[in-house]
Amino acid sequence: MKEIKVGLIGFGTVGSGTAQVLYEQASRIQKRTGASIILKKVADISIESLPSHLSSTQLTRDAADIIDDPDIDIVIELIGGTTIAKKFILAAIAKGKHVVTANKALLSEHGKEIFAAAAEKNVEIGFEASVGGGIPLIKTVKEGLVANKILSIMGIMNGTANYILTQMTDHGIAFDKVLKDAQKKGYAEADPTYDVEGIDTAHKLVILMTLSYGMDVRLADINCEGISRIEPIDIQFAREFGYRIKLLAISRNHGDHVEARVHPTMVPEKHMLANINGPYNGFYFTGDMVENVLLYGKGAGKMPTGSAVAADVIDIARDIMFHAINRVPSLSYQHQHIAPRRITPMEELRSPYYFRFTTHDKPGVLSTISGILGKYDISIESVIQKGREKKGNVPIVMRTYEASEASVRKALSEINGLDTTMAETVKIRILVDDGK
Amino acid sequence: MKEIKVGLIGFGTVGSGTAQVLYEQASRIQKRTGASIILKKVADISIESLPSHLSSTQLTRDAADIIDDPDIDIVIELIGGTTIAKKFILAAIAKGKHVVTANKALLSEHGKEIFAAAAEKNVEIGFEASVGGGIPLIKTVKEGLVANKILSIMGIMNGTANYILTQMTDHGIAFDKVLKDAQKKGYAEADPTYDVEGIDTAHKLVILMTLSYGMDVRLADINCEGISRIEPIDIQFAREFGYRIKLLAISRNHGDHVEARVHPTMVPEKHMLANINGPYNGFYFTGDMVENVLLYGKGAGKMPTGSAVAADVIDIARDIMFHAINRVPSLSYQHQHIAPRRITPMEELRSPYYFRFTTHDKPGVLSTISGILGKYDISIESVIQKGREKKGNVPIVMRTYEASEASVRKALSEINGLDTTMAETVKIRILVDDGK
Repeated sequence: MKEIKVGLIGFGTVGSGTAQVLYEQASRIQKRTGASIILKKVADISIESLPSHLSSTQLTRDAADIIDDPDIDIVIELIGGTTIAKKFILAAIAKGKHVVTANKALLSEHGKEIFAAAAEKNVEIGFEASVGGGIPLIKTVKEGLVANKILSIMGIMNGTANYILTQMTDHGIAFDKVLKDAQKKGYAEADPTYDVEGIDTAHKLVILMTLSYGMDVRLADINCEGISRIEPIDIQFAREFGYRIKLLAISRNHGDHVEARVHPTMVPEKHMLANINGPYNGFYFTGDMVENVLLYGKGAGKMPTGSAVAADVIDIARDIMFHAINRVPSLSYQHQHIAPRRITPMEELRSPYYFRFTTHDKPGVLSTISGILGKYDISIESVIQKGREKKGNVPIVMRTYEASEASVRKALSEINGLDTTMAETVKIRILVDDGK
Repeated sequence: MKEIKVGLIGFGTVGSGTAQVLYEQASRIQKRTGASIILKKVADISIESLPSHLSSTQLTRDAADIIDDPDIDIVIELIGGTTIAKKFILAAIAKGKHVVTANKALLSEHGKEIFAAAAEKNVEIGFEASVGGGIPLIKTVKEGLVANKILSIMGIMNGTANYILTQMTDHGIAFDKVLKDAQKKGYAEADPTYDVEGIDTAHKLVILMTLSYGMDVRLADINCEGISRIEPIDIQFAREFGYRIKLLAISRNHGDHVEARVHPTMVPEKHMLANINGPYNGFYFTGDMVENVLLYGKGAGKMPTGSAVAADVIDIARDIMFHAINRVPSLSYQHQHIAPRRITPMEELRSPYYFRFTTHDKPGVLSTISGILGKYDISIESVIQKGREKKGNVPIVMRTYEASEASVRKALSEINGLDTTMAETVKIRILVDDGK
């Protein structure tokens, strides 16, 4: 039987999960592909021993032992980060090896250089595990939806942020408290910035936009707002209006320009994305032919992510066996057809909005606020004004019709400057899904 | 540029949708694959003219004009049915042509013969469009989840049945009335048997079990119950218990035997499958590595199904270009590894149940029923007994703990024989999702 030899750099959570998948599924993989995938070597600087299904002679502290091994066809990079990982990947490509990685930060920041190097050497880069853990959505975009113009991408792409929002929604607990609890349970990192401020989600959106539209996207193109300012009171008002608050990545394809944004969003409660809770992810694509497709599953975790890494390894193994390298282009479009596109400036965005004003309880405040909104052409769809809170402040909550972000920014800046405004106004965009 | 020539047999709804996808996406397909897919000929016995993007010289009434054309690489069969379609497909295979079809009835009834013929001639059979319309779930099972033992398949696989149940749930209307309305609107066929009695769903389950488990499945293996006996009152009681009633296909993989059943099911309201409404489909897989994955979208329709047919054509075109035919086996496992497995007899099934008894309102009836259930080891979890209905009949509604189907059948047969039982007892199985 044909053997495909693999080397694995980085034996952390996903690395050990990947090794376990390849071990436990070995017979199944043979029955499906007609080939054996052999994990020949594992490189890691900080582990002392390997699980019993691997021999200690397979362990090295030097990644070069894998990269320079002429016997190894595919190098799996699972150390993360954007410096050493990049060096190892470029070195592996230079040696003519195919690469599988889960490194979304690296691909979204240095993808252009890496994919150019891979094209130059005619090797493949597999990165299914970089977005959505075990959910096979990269393959879906590149192959399953190949005969579609993707009109929009919307998704809950970060399990930590979704877990925190779900806890806040189900139990009415404040962000800080849920975060601390999540950190204690190991669901959130000690430094949660990437997850809760939407940066991790933005990394993933860069990758999905690149594949879906055949365009060059830079991380800096993505407008990114996190969930740390969301309060239980907003979640409660959202519910009264019939919404759930979710941290969404949203990209709409307008042809000559594309939206690219990550921010907390009010999702209508009947929408599939509103019903994705806890650590689960959901990726919602609208194609001009297929209409709406949602993929849902665990967006992280040792074994689910290992499942995606293994699927990539098997995909490349099949191409090696059939001498069909780059049968599907790594970035979904042929290299020469990937081009930059204009990113819609946020000011040009049009959306309905939710506002929560914190005001002094004086007569005429609502009238002043409504007047300013009217001046900027922002029409109010409904208002909730609740009883006085402590310290004489009252929340005034509004849902608007579609308005331009530029006008909203000007209006809110003016309203925030009023003597009667006691705290910065909370602004949450409301999802309109034309695709449904 | 490399050209791949295609012939299309059957220019009905999906056929014309497929032609439109190939036409409208031609430039995108070139940019992604580096090849042109040329729809050379269309065969149909009943149409007079083609849309403007096709020339009338491309139209023929004789499928042999396509099957015998040495210039055509891929034959698309979209006439449906299990007789002529089978003849055409086998003839195309005999001529060494690859085949793409959406014909679930044919594949679930005569798949063995067709796939054996294709293996013999080393040609590919694409059938993404046969299950789930445009949702790329065949590819997901064959490739994305390749490194998983699939532990269970659960799904809402028929849009017509789901539309009817959704209407019944949202508006409390009876089955017959909703069905008539759906027929008027063109959402249901004149003869709705396949859709509402679960046969269409069973066809799809056969295909998914074959691919997921690497096993021979026959349509007769699937236990099939439809939704025509569901009444609004059951939907209402389901809601009180926290469930939605859905027509589910369910297959659990127990290793030495596998469950294979289609029936109305009470789905816990927080489960993703409970929230799939209207004509949408949802396919929920649990893999030993990936855990739960759901794919959701339009399970039918001209353009979504056309999108899936086109994706298959493109997949095969790539294999033709790279001389990589059968790079992924059509049935997911290499031919020699597909074997029969024991189907769990329904009597061996264990499940919690919902019962609705229609009884005469006499003292002691509940006690008699409970006594019979107890005799057969069926434990009651909760009971609802509502006020008297017209004609002195009352519904007694129960939810049981897990019980064996064999015991339930015996107990219900005894209860249905009681003088106080005024109508056959309604029995609906309750979903337990261990995977969550």
